[in-house]
Amino acid sequence: MINVSEAQWSVGRWQEEIEIRLAGDDAEGPLVNIRANDSREFDAIFLGGGAAGRFGAAYLRAMGGRPLIVDRWPFLGGSCPHHACVPHHVFSDVAAQLMLERTFSGRLWFQNLRGRIVSIKEIVEMFREGRTGPHAFMNFQSKEQLDLEFVLGTEARILDAHSASVAGITFGAKNLVLATGARPKTLSIPGRDLAGVFDYASLVDTLDYEPGPTAVVIGGGKTAIEYGCFFNATGRRTLIVSRHKPLPMVNDGETRAFLLERMQEQGMEFLPGAALATLEGDQRGRVQAAVIRTLEGEIRVETDFLFLAQGLHPNSEEARATLGVAVDSDDFIRVDSRLRTSIPNVYAVGDVIGPPMEMFKARKGGMYAARNIMGEEAHYRLGDYPDFMHTHYEVCWLGLGEEDARERYRNVVVLKLPPENPDGHRVALPAGDRMMLYAMMKPELTGFQKLVVDGDSRRVVGAFHVGYGAKDGFQYLAPMVRNGLSVDELGEMDELFLNPSYFIQLCRLRAGSRILRGM
Amino acid sequence: MINVSEAQWSVGRWQEEIEIRLAGDDAEGPLVNIRANDSREFDAIFLGGGAAGRFGAAYLRAMGGRPLIVDRWPFLGGSCPHHACVPHHVFSDVAAQLMLERTFSGRLWFQNLRGRIVSIKEIVEMFREGRTGPHAFMNFQSKEQLDLEFVLGTEARILDAHSASVAGITFGAKNLVLATGARPKTLSIPGRDLAGVFDYASLVDTLDYEPGPTAVVIGGGKTAIEYGCFFNATGRRTLIVSRHKPLPMVNDGETRAFLLERMQEQGMEFLPGAALATLEGDQRGRVQAAVIRTLEGEIRVETDFLFLAQGLHPNSEEARATLGVAVDSDDFIRVDSRLRTSIPNVYAVGDVIGPPMEMFKARKGGMYAARNIMGEEAHYRLGDYPDFMHTHYEVCWLGLGEEDARERYRNVVVLKLPPENPDGHRVALPAGDRMMLYAMMKPELTGFQKLVVDGDSRRVVGAFHVGYGAKDGFQYLAPMVRNGLSVDELGEMDELFLNPSYFIQLCRLRAGSRILRGM
Repeated sequence: MINVSEAQWSVGRWQEEIEIRLAGDDAEGPLVNIRANDSREFDAIFLGGGAAGRFGAAYLRAMGGRPLIVDRWPFLGGSCPHHACVPHHVFSDVAAQLMLERTFSGRLWFQNLRGRIVSIKEIVEMFREGRTGPHAFMNFQSKEQLDLEFVLGTEARILDAHSASVAGITFGAKNLVLATGARPKTLSIPGRDLAGVFDYASLVDTLDYEPGPTAVVIGGGKTAIEYGCFFNATGRRTLIVSRHKPLPMVNDGETRAFLLERMQEQGMEFLPGAALATLEGDQRGRVQAAVIRTLEGEIRVETDFLFLAQGLHPNSEEARATLGVAVDSDDFIRVDSRLRTSIPNVYAVGDVIGPPMEMFKARKGGMYAARNIMGEEAHYRLGDYPDFMHTHYEVCWLGLGEEDARERYRNVVVLKLPPENPDGHRVALPAGDRMMLYAMMKPELTGFQKLVVDGDSRRVVGAFHVGYGAKDGFQYLAPMVRNGLSVDELGEMDELFLNPSYFIQLCRLRAGSRILRGM
Repeated sequence: MINVSEAQWSVGRWQEEIEIRLAGDDAEGPLVNIRANDSREFDAIFLGGGAAGRFGAAYLRAMGGRPLIVDRWPFLGGSCPHHACVPHHVFSDVAAQLMLERTFSGRLWFQNLRGRIVSIKEIVEMFREGRTGPHAFMNFQSKEQLDLEFVLGTEARILDAHSASVAGITFGAKNLVLATGARPKTLSIPGRDLAGVFDYASLVDTLDYEPGPTAVVIGGGKTAIEYGCFFNATGRRTLIVSRHKPLPMVNDGETRAFLLERMQEQGMEFLPGAALATLEGDQRGRVQAAVIRTLEGEIRVETDFLFLAQGLHPNSEEARATLGVAVDSDDFIRVDSRLRTSIPNVYAVGDVIGPPMEMFKARKGGMYAARNIMGEEAHYRLGDYPDFMHTHYEVCWLGLGEEDARERYRNVVVLKLPPENPDGHRVALPAGDRMMLYAMMKPELTGFQKLVVDGDSRRVVGAFHVGYGAKDGFQYLAPMVRNGLSVDELGEMDELFLNPSYFIQLCRLRAGSRILRGM
C-alpha cells in the first residue's frame, strides 16, 4: 500500500506507477489517498471510479461532502480511457485518416496505400502504451484539483449498505454508490473460447498477433460499426454480421442510407438477418473460420479475427448477492429518478443501471446521486439527448428523423445538403474542416446534413450530420432545440464559415418567407 | 449571352460553362437568368453576387420581392469560394494534415516526410481545378432553389441610384445594393511589381512555378498566419514579418502564447516590429530577396516567394465617383444600421462597408438590407460574435479573455485544459476527434482550452479553444453566453464524449460548489 496523500505526484509520476501495476507488478500494493487527519465519516463509498463514480464523488466533494472511491484498477476514469471511449476514438480517427490517405493515394504528397494492409497490432499497441497518460491525468486531477480520496488497484468487497472491505480494511460510510459498470456480452456457441475472438476490452488488452486479411464483426450497433470501419480502413475485408438491419439508432432513413452506401463504397460487407452459428479453430486453438447462419443457409468465412459487439452485461452480481438490490430482466440494477436502488442508502449509477451507455448519463447520474446523498431532492430525468457515432465519418443526430416527424407534424420542411439535384451527392457541399480535400477532389465524400423542421411552428425538430466537426455543436444545439429553437432564431446566429454544419445559413436562406419551404 | 432561364442546368453543366469562361473564353457572353414573362420592376439590383449580395437577394426573394444580381464572375458566391474562405480552408486542412504526417513520420503506417518539401504549386492547382464545383453549386442553388435572377460574367456600370448598365442593357430598380467587396492591399515599395509577390487572390489565380525553400509573409493577422502555417507545413522556412505582435485578435494571452509556441515548434519564425523595405528582383523579373527593416537594422532574406497579407481595400471607387456615396477614411462605404448609404435608395453590404470581413456579417448585412428594402425597419447590430482562425489547428474564441475579464470582474474563475501542473502541456488532454494520435503519441500537441467565468454570477464570459472540431459549437455557444449562460447550466448539458470542447464536464466538476473554484 502506497500512501500518496502527503505529496503531490506529477502526471509523469502517476504514469510510472500505473504502468508498473498494469504490467502485473503490484508488489507495492494499492495506491491510497486518504487524509489521515480527517476523522469525518464518509458520506459515500463509490464502488468504481469510472465516469459515474468519479464525477459523482467530485460533485459530492464540491458540495462539501466526503466521498471515498475504490477501484480495482490503479487509475480513475474506468473503462472509458482503458477500453472504451478513448480507444474507440483512436481507432475512428485512424479510420478517417486512412480513408483520406487511401482516397488520395499517389496524388499530391500522399503515399500510395492502395492494396496495402495496415497493421492493427501496431495501432493497438500504440494505444496500449498511450492510454496510461490519460489514466495518470485522471489521478492527478482527482487528487490535486478535485480533492478526492481513493483506494486504487484493489477490489472492494461489499459488506452491507454502509461498509466495504478494501485491502483488508473495513471502510464505513453513510451510503454506498454502486458504479461497477458493465462488460461485453460473451458468446454461447461452440468455439467461443478460441483465441482470436475479441471484444472491445480484450482487443486492446490482449491482441498479440497480426490479424489476417478478413475481419468478422458480430453486431450492428455503434460498437460493431465503429470497429468494423476501423478494420476496413486498415485494408481488410470486413463483414458485419447482425441479426437486424445495421444502424438502427440513426433514426433518419436518408442519413442511414447515406452512411451505408459510403461504407459499402469503402468495401464493407453487410450480412443483416444473420447470426454466428459456430466457430472453427485451428490446431493452436485460434479461430480459423466462422460459420454464419443466414436465411439462405449457412456460409463459412475463413478468418482468424472475430470481433464481438453484442451489447453489455452489467457488473451487478456482487450487489445482488450481498445486498439483494433489485435488477431488471437483463440484470441491470433498478434505480428511481434519484438514483436510489431498492436498498436504502444504496445508489447505483453508470452502465450498471442500463442504457443509454453514454458518458453524459454516467457522469450526470453520479452528480444527481451526490445531490440526493447530500440531502437534496434531485431527480435526474434523461429526456431527449443528442447522440453520435463514428463510421469513417463522425455522425451526429438529435430529435426526430424525417419519417417520425412526418408522423407527428402535418407540414414537415427539410433543409439539407446536398439537396435533391440531378448530380446527387457529386457536389462539393457540405464542405468544412477536415473535408476540404474531398470537396476539391472527391466531392461525393463530403458528407450529408439535414435539418428537420415543423413548418407550421418553424421549430427545428431534428438534426443530422455526417462529416466532421459537428459533434461539439450538437451538444449545444440540443438544449436549444428542446427549448423550441426556430429557423428564424438559427438564421440570426453568427456562423463561423466554413462551418461543418450549415444549419444557420440554410435557415437564413429560407427564413424570409412566411411559408417555409424546404431546400 | 446565354439565357438559362428556360431549362434546369445540372451542377455538372454549370461547372462546364464556368470553366470555359474562367479559361478566358467568353465567346458566348454572360449567363443570364431573367424571367421573360415577369414584368415587375426589380426591387433591388445587387451589384456583386458574393456572400452579401447573394444572401441579400435570396432573403429579398423569400420575402416576395424581386432582386437582380449582377456579377463580373460567371458564378455566384463571390470571392469566398474563388479566392478566400474556401482556399483558406483547403490550405489549413493541408497544414493540419501535414503536421500530423510530419509528427508521426515513419511510425505506424505513416510515410516519412522528414525533410521533404511538398509542392505548393500542385496544391494550388488542385484547388484551382476543384473550386469550380462549389461555384457551380452556387449557381444551381441560386437558380433552382432560391429562385434568383442574375446576369453573370460581365461588369455592371452604375448609372444612378436606380439603374445600371449591364452588357449594353439598362436595368432599372427601386434600389441599388452595393456588394462589390474588397481586394487585398498592394505594396508601395520598390520591387512591388516583381513576379513572385502574391496575395491570397493572385496566389490561387496565378502561381505558375514551384516556390523555393523560403516563404516570406508580410502581416500578422489571420490571413498572414493561416497562409504562413500552410507554407511552413509544406516544409519551407517561413518568416512572418509584421509591424505589431502577431495574433492581436486572439484576446487571451495564454491562448495566444500557446499558439505562438506551437507554431515556433513547427519551425515558424516571427519578426514582429518589422516592415518590408525593398524587394530585389532577378533578371527574369522575379523577386529573389526581401530586405526587411527591423529595430536592429535591415536584414536581407533570399526568397522567390513573398505573400502579402496586409488587409483589404474596398471596391468603392465606382460608387463614389458615380453616386457620391460617403466613405470613411479607409474608403469603406458608410452605412447606418439599416445598411443605407448616404444616398437614398442605395444600400451597401459586405466587405465594402468595412470590418469585420466575416461571412456572417456579409450574409446578415444582405438579409437586413433586404428587410429594409421590403419596407421593414430592421436594424443590424453587430454585437459580440464568436470568431475563429486557423494555425495548424483550428482556433475559436468568444467573449472576454482572462486579462480583460479580470479588469471587469473582481472574481474571475478559469477552467482550462491542461490545467496548471508540473508536466505543463505534456498531458494528453484535451483529447478529441482528429486529436487522438497526438493524445497517444505526442500529448503536448493536443491543444488547449479555457473557459473564463465571472465567479460571482457564475456566468461564462469568455471561451477559447485550440484544437479541432469546436468551431461549430462556438456558433451555438455564443448566443447562450450572450444570454447569460452559467456554469450550472453548462454542467446540465449532455456532452458527446470525447467532445472537442470539455466545457460541459469541466463545469460539472465544479458546479457542486457554492464558491466556484478554477481548475
